[in-house]
Amino acid sequence: MRNLLLTLCYDGAQYHGWQIQNNAVSVQQVFQEALFKVTSEKPEIKGCSRTDSGVHANQYCISLKTGHTIPCERLLNALNHFLPEDIAVQDCREVPMDFHARYSCLGKEYIYKIWNEPVRNPFLRNRALHYWYPLDLSRMNEAAAHYIGKHDFTSFCTSDARDRGDMCRTVTRAGIQRDGGLVTFTVAADGFLYNMVRIMVGTLLYVAQGKLQPEQIPEILAARDRTAAGPTAPPCGLYLNRVFYGEGPV
Amino acid sequence: MRNLLLTLCYDGAQYHGWQIQNNAVSVQQVFQEALFKVTSEKPEIKGCSRTDSGVHANQYCISLKTGHTIPCERLLNALNHFLPEDIAVQDCREVPMDFHARYSCLGKEYIYKIWNEPVRNPFLRNRALHYWYPLDLSRMNEAAAHYIGKHDFTSFCTSDARDRGDMCRTVTRAGIQRDGGLVTFTVAADGFLYNMVRIMVGTLLYVAQGKLQPEQIPEILAARDRTAAGPTAPPCGLYLNRVFYGEGPV
Repeated sequence: MRNLLLTLCYDGAQYHGWQIQNNAVSVQQVFQEALFKVTSEKPEIKGCSRTDSGVHANQYCISLKTGHTIPCERLLNALNHFLPEDIAVQDCREVPMDFHARYSCLGKEYIYKIWNEPVRNPFLRNRALHYWYPLDLSRMNEAAAHYIGKHDFTSFCTSDARDRGDMCRTVTRAGIQRDGGLVTFTVAADGFLYNMVRIMVGTLLYVAQGKLQPEQIPEILAARDRTAAGPTAPPCGLYLNRVFYGEGPV
Repeated sequence: MRNLLLTLCYDGAQYHGWQIQNNAVSVQQVFQEALFKVTSEKPEIKGCSRTDSGVHANQYCISLKTGHTIPCERLLNALNHFLPEDIAVQDCREVPMDFHARYSCLGKEYIYKIWNEPVRNPFLRNRALHYWYPLDLSRMNEAAAHYIGKHDFTSFCTSDARDRGDMCRTVTRAGIQRDGGLVTFTVAADGFLYNMVRIMVGTLLYVAQGKLQPEQIPEILAARDRTAAGPTAPPCGLYLNRVFYGEGPV
């Protein structure tokens, strides 16, 4: 047996997230079918996180144990042959047997893309939130800076996903940048609660709209109440961007 | 009556080019239907060029005459409301009555995108050619430089589209650049023959493969023979990028 770490990249627009579910096509299901075509095996596949319907990944890591002897490079090529064009395996390597894509993960980075122009961008359909009012990035960055550090993020977690123990996460990076019409929010942390990034973005948009002040973020965190934060931004702008194991990203 | 110049942007993946045809959905047809919903008019729409099935446009200009009194800004918003998400109207303005999107055009710029990495990019599916062998850009640029100037481009025109008069065009810019895994060929000219850019790209790929030498481009031009040039690159990487009228792009 070998334990393999595979890095995927996918456009999530056509999928109901990563995880296998009934009555909906998930990335995991499609990947599992491609793997079966190559190895005739159906091993348990450990994904680094759940991603919601319509969410994308520039880097998504999975681990699986296989008795098949196919070399990593050939497995990568064979999987890419059988996978649809909106999913690609970027890397495949052998890792120690106790490595687990989710539990060995030290942190992740997400980005959220906003197309901030009056007219929509046809090339960012399903790939960015179209927000046409001007955005004051310095004000949004002032608010985003309050996300950094170790906090209880209960206010930034969808209500029905609570009662899962520790709601504290350590955010190591949070900021927003503009490149032409494209505004990108980047956030890195040791872990994320359910819908945490999308609620962070919805809250920053409330700050941009003047419905909240940047200095209110600490109060919102302290409230530990989902209704204190802004709305949940739509999934189309969200990308799992990097996954950290040991030293740096994979 | 007013004469209007509208600038569109579209992802051409789902369309059989710009021009209306039987049994296939074109950008022009979809635009005409949206225009009819707004103005109840079906004027003749002049497009700046034909684009092939699957070709994209960052900027595509059309002109049309209307008796409707709707202000330009409201027309733009109403059209964007009725158009599908892969087409957008970026600009709408009144122009002199003798303006014609095609005949008044002084030049156009196309770009051609190549994803030059071993593994495909799911986000560039239908939006770039995936070419996985390493590309020697300095060699390709040496060849591309020979495109610049006034030449008979018969060798760079699909055979069945000839006998249309003057085959000379003046290329003012031709070069290729890399940004990470993305390689972009940019070419500007006073006009383009049928499939000219795609054959230019196919020929540059032959140069990269060593099947042709950069210094053979002048011979290929002189041959005035389609078979002397390289193959026609697929449409997915091609974008009409800018359209020039009078002073600079629209």
